[in-house]
Amino acid sequence: MTIHLDTERTTLDAARAALRGRLLADGVLIDLGSPGLYGRTGVFERVYGAVDAAAVRSQSDLDAEVLRFPPVEPLTAFERTDYIASFPDLAASISGFTGDDRTHRALLAARERGERWEGFLEPADLMLTPAVCHPVYGLVGDVVHAGGRFFDIVGDSFRRELSLDPMRLQAFHMHEFVHIGTPESAKAHRDGRIPVMRALLESFGLEIDVVPANDPFFGRVGQMLARNQVEQALKFEFVTPVYGPDHEATAISSANLHEDHFGTAFGIRSADGGVAHSACIAFGLERITIALFAAHGTDPDAWPTAVRSALAL
Amino acid sequence: MTIHLDTERTTLDAARAALRGRLLADGVLIDLGSPGLYGRTGVFERVYGAVDAAAVRSQSDLDAEVLRFPPVEPLTAFERTDYIASFPDLAASISGFTGDDRTHRALLAARERGERWEGFLEPADLMLTPAVCHPVYGLVGDVVHAGGRFFDIVGDSFRRELSLDPMRLQAFHMHEFVHIGTPESAKAHRDGRIPVMRALLESFGLEIDVVPANDPFFGRVGQMLARNQVEQALKFEFVTPVYGPDHEATAISSANLHEDHFGTAFGIRSADGGVAHSACIAFGLERITIALFAAHGTDPDAWPTAVRSALAL
Repeated sequence: MTIHLDTERTTLDAARAALRGRLLADGVLIDLGSPGLYGRTGVFERVYGAVDAAAVRSQSDLDAEVLRFPPVEPLTAFERTDYIASFPDLAASISGFTGDDRTHRALLAARERGERWEGFLEPADLMLTPAVCHPVYGLVGDVVHAGGRFFDIVGDSFRRELSLDPMRLQAFHMHEFVHIGTPESAKAHRDGRIPVMRALLESFGLEIDVVPANDPFFGRVGQMLARNQVEQALKFEFVTPVYGPDHEATAISSANLHEDHFGTAFGIRSADGGVAHSACIAFGLERITIALFAAHGTDPDAWPTAVRSALAL
Repeated sequence: MTIHLDTERTTLDAARAALRGRLLADGVLIDLGSPGLYGRTGVFERVYGAVDAAAVRSQSDLDAEVLRFPPVEPLTAFERTDYIASFPDLAASISGFTGDDRTHRALLAARERGERWEGFLEPADLMLTPAVCHPVYGLVGDVVHAGGRFFDIVGDSFRRELSLDPMRLQAFHMHEFVHIGTPESAKAHRDGRIPVMRALLESFGLEIDVVPANDPFFGRVGQMLARNQVEQALKFEFVTPVYGPDHEATAISSANLHEDHFGTAFGIRSADGGVAHSACIAFGLERITIALFAAHGTDPDAWPTAVRSALAL
């Protein structure tokens, strides 16, 4: 069994390396020298922009409030999400230099000696934002009005994962459509959007399955949290077989019911006085884009007419 | 003199606070709880997108290669720019958690006690990118071909500045058009683009002056570097009187000649064998956008017809 798993791992790694190599060789991505960090070229941006625009069109009936966030968030906001308890290995904190001329000279001298100099920096009370919907919960006030609120959110996300799988980046973007309201309206948002998202992704010529999933909770306690999440069917992922039918399919989007997690953490109530529930659907923009290159090749002009039409390419 | 300067400072601070308050009250920006970090609403994004598109149209004759970069860059790339020597106070390093379950429990226990927990994280060999053109120099190889190369670059920039001036953000975007070539072609790029940029910004209904400027070099050595930069006329800024005629105008774009700074640091030669020279022009997308709100009000539909037309709004 171990041998079988090792073989599967090896062929999966080979498939990942092959896709990564092809994206680099064909000038879609550029290696920046750290796993999961890439420069993006014009052909990548053309498809990425088309994917994002199609995602927005597919949710235009929500008439959602547009919000955009920077790649960093204040530590106080990060703390309220309890992210460091559940996903410490993915978190990233920011430090800055607050010293004077003299401390700067000491830093440069250490650097000159080939020593690390980050120790001269102090925590800056900022974190890289791990999930673009996090900032919104601190901004909606204590009560959301009857009917709840819908938000159209895009931002940079960062998760500290060092992978050579081009489907797993450290820095990426999600386009999320978040609802904050009642238990019923949150579940309706999550469930009602699933067929719309599936149809959209299938129109891109991708083979899609929608499966129960869990977030990558850390450690032994995390394993229990992950099991609970799957058992309670809180998270569904839209997966596509990027690496062929012999390997597990890769998530490119998700639909998530948070129940009262953020409502409780941020003290939000719905119009009826109960703790607000929330849900979000999330398009993984880089993952969809790269899945398209994997499925249809690196020249979008040669993609099937139906796919180009669905993407308005 | 001191009294005069203090008065000027106070009225300038008041003008900055007034603009910030108006942008927040009118729902253009959203306060995220850290100076210079804002959420951006639909009206902001509408103008921001129009500014960016107009900037791209104005440089379309360059036929530049499109490159997009994530908000973080590997430490190795950052080190080659020597940024920590010149601008330590603006730099931002990233740390991640590499510990096990046991270390995580210790982190959470410290957090529970109200202590800082960033000390449990380790430097991640990543920095927030302070200037979006930095990554490009490591990617062009040893020699640029005759005629040089032109790049169209956008990315998140981060500079650790804590200011309540809405024109001074910690996280922002520059759209840069970079040329790498010979001393002559670099200077021609920088100088040739200045009138084009000025005309574009003036078409937005902004009063523009083009002035010699310096980067905010750190410390006593930095003061000398700044003077040199001005004396050698390496940097020009496009400034506009956001806070009225009584206060210094604010830079919203720049045109920069790097001479052989990056060519030497990254070992790049031009086709004739000399060290490559480079130049970039940079549109400060958030600064232009906010200058427009300051000049014309927070309702773009009420802006002068000529301005809306120049922005294709």
